[in-house]
Amino acid sequence: MSSTVGRHAAREQPLDAIFQALGDRTRRALLARLAQRPAMITELAAPFAMSLPAVSRHIRVLEGAGLVARTVDGRVHRCALHAAPLRSAAAWLQQYRRFWQGSLESLARYVERR
Amino acid sequence: MSSTVGRHAAREQPLDAIFQALGDRTRRALLARLAQRPAMITELAAPFAMSLPAVSRHIRVLEGAGLVARTVDGRVHRCALHAAPLRSAAAWLQQYRRFWQGSLESLARYVERR
Repeated sequence: MSSTVGRHAAREQPLDAIFQALGDRTRRALLARLAQRPAMITELAAPFAMSLPAVSRHIRVLEGAGLVARTVDGRVHRCALHAAPLRSAAAWLQQYRRFWQGSLESLARYVERR
Repeated sequence: MSSTVGRHAAREQPLDAIFQALGDRTRRALLARLAQRPAMITELAAPFAMSLPAVSRHIRVLEGAGLVARTVDGRVHRCALHAAPLRSAAAWLQQYRRFWQGSLESLARYVERR
């Protein structure tokens, strides 16, 4: 990459992990579940037709992106939503707001004209 | 997945592709470049220390997520930003806004108290 793009690499790395973590519907569903209240891994696995290790792998990806915080009490692993990193993902997307608003407005004008 | 999660699969599939496409800093940089104006693949490749085929692969991922529209005129492939799908990604993130706002507010209260 050029220096223009590359010099932001340190800042860009968390966004890579956040967007990659969100790019899976099971992980988004796990975040939606944790938004209700913290839960143990076994509770999280229950509504999914998935093995406990498979759910654990998804949780580890979410932890890696800073989206889930895990506390360990003996053999009980409790997970909680940590939403702060979603803010930077939302901020990145907001830069493009004028583009999707623009296309909605031109669609509205087109519909009105007919 | 359970029926509760699974029944949204059709709606969730585009979000998988959108977030996966965004989970790479080069692809985000390509979108930023296309936000300035449409460009040919060769123009897009120029600022990156990447081969044309490597840039083409990234463009194909962005096309697959509906984020880039390509028009072909003879041997000239022109790419344009198609931002509409970013709207659904932003809408998904906005569901979590109260969580990151909540954590900022409790941080502010904590700082004030000290």
